[in-house]
Amino acid sequence: MHGPCIICVAITGSLPRKADNPAVPISISEQVESAQQAFEAGATIAHCHVRDEDETPSSDPEKFAALLEGLQRHCPGMIVQLSTGGRSGAGQARGGMLPLRPDMASLSVGSNNFPTRVYENPPDLVDWLASEMLAHGVKPEIEAFDLSHIFKAKEMWDKGQIQDRPYVQFVMGVKNAMPADREVFDYYIKTVHRLFGPDAPWCAAGIGPNQIVLNDWAVSSGGHART
Amino acid sequence: MHGPCIICVAITGSLPRKADNPAVPISISEQVESAQQAFEAGATIAHCHVRDEDETPSSDPEKFAALLEGLQRHCPGMIVQLSTGGRSGAGQARGGMLPLRPDMASLSVGSNNFPTRVYENPPDLVDWLASEMLAHGVKPEIEAFDLSHIFKAKEMWDKGQIQDRPYVQFVMGVKNAMPADREVFDYYIKTVHRLFGPDAPWCAAGIGPNQIVLNDWAVSSGGHART
Ligand SMILES: [Zn+2]
Ligand SMILES: [Zn+2]
Ligand SMILES: [Zn+2]
Ligand SMILES: [Zn+2]
Repeated sequence: MHGPCIICVAITGSLPRKADNPAVPISISEQVESAQQAFEAGATIAHCHVRDEDETPSSDPEKFAALLEGLQRHCPGMIVQLSTGGRSGAGQARGGMLPLRPDMASLSVGSNNFPTRVYENPPDLVDWLASEMLAHGVKPEIEAFDLSHIFKAKEMWDKGQIQDRPYVQFVMGVKNAMPADREVFDYYIKTVHRLFGPDAPWCAAGIGPNQIVLNDWAVSSGGHART
Repeated sequence: MHGPCIICVAITGSLPRKADNPAVPISISEQVESAQQAFEAGATIAHCHVRDEDETPSSDPEKFAALLEGLQRHCPGMIVQLSTGGRSGAGQARGGMLPLRPDMASLSVGSNNFPTRVYENPPDLVDWLASEMLAHGVKPEIEAFDLSHIFKAKEMWDKGQIQDRPYVQFVMGVKNAMPADREVFDYYIKTVHRLFGPDAPWCAAGIGPNQIVLNDWAVSSGGHART
């Protein structure tokens, strides 16, 4: 028996544009409206990226501040998770919004390949992002693009770089990183339970067409889901 | 019942210096002498790095040519594996020795963190190194620093980027990459057998004090060993 499934809605993401899908919310007001609809439909975490006027990904703290304020006003009680991912900025600019003290932020703890490049999360940047989250009371969501990232989260928890038991998201289906493989998915769950305890929560996200597959696997296995 | 264990001797490596251990063979003649002793003691693969006069790692094809020639002369029948690892050069310089047509070369197929930096193996470099190995008849040894690297090897084999069934080495105990974890080790073996067949060979290496641990695990599990 599992508790209720937490639905985390990624309202915008870092990549899709209006040209790909006219329904993608880009402006702050579009994002707040979209998140409110999802919140009313039952989503309780909003995973947020912000964009520049030309729709390119940004990590501008002022934009994040406006989004955070809008979400707090229109979706009272919704958990706001801001992305510190590498598609929206480089180096410490990726964590410039952490002093805003969102409820949560994403935290990549290792490096891996992406479709056409290296997703770079050098150890000193990982340490700095974690320390900023600690300093500002922000709960990290660990993005596990590969198995060793779960072990890195354990090490960081042991060292006090992560305060609470790590909340890990399995990211599958990224080309040149981990494919959406059911046996690996089950091994990820087993590893989370081994390292963090049998009742440790976890969530999963699939990229593109793998999203619905991962939702199915996660919900039916007692995990939480990312849209 | 398993066949005989293949011992691959890493005579020099990329990092240790005379100041760390006076016995580390650095010059070509020291390397050939050391490899010959190992060959006579039963090692059948030599994993090779070359160094500059000041002991810093190098990927100079002329140095590799001299080493290859010395090994072929003094260790007839020994399999020579040249490193294309990222500690000895950057970009395509890492593969400049492949036209020498060594029996084997190491091939990293993904990126991961190292103790203080990102070990960068961008997808286009991985593709190029693999194509050079194909063009020059060099058998790759896949260096798996994380689980997804085994899946990447499968994808490359399926696409014809790797000619024979991939020969994978599990690398464990690198700080910020995969620790030397026995359950993961067993899962690596299971994954190799699932993806490449129940009789697929594999080998394992541990970094520093993990070396002897990994040797024990590998030899007792039917794998091959790296010194
Ligand atoms: Zn995101
Ligand atoms: Zn701060
Ligand atoms: Zn090496
Ligand atoms: Zn060539």
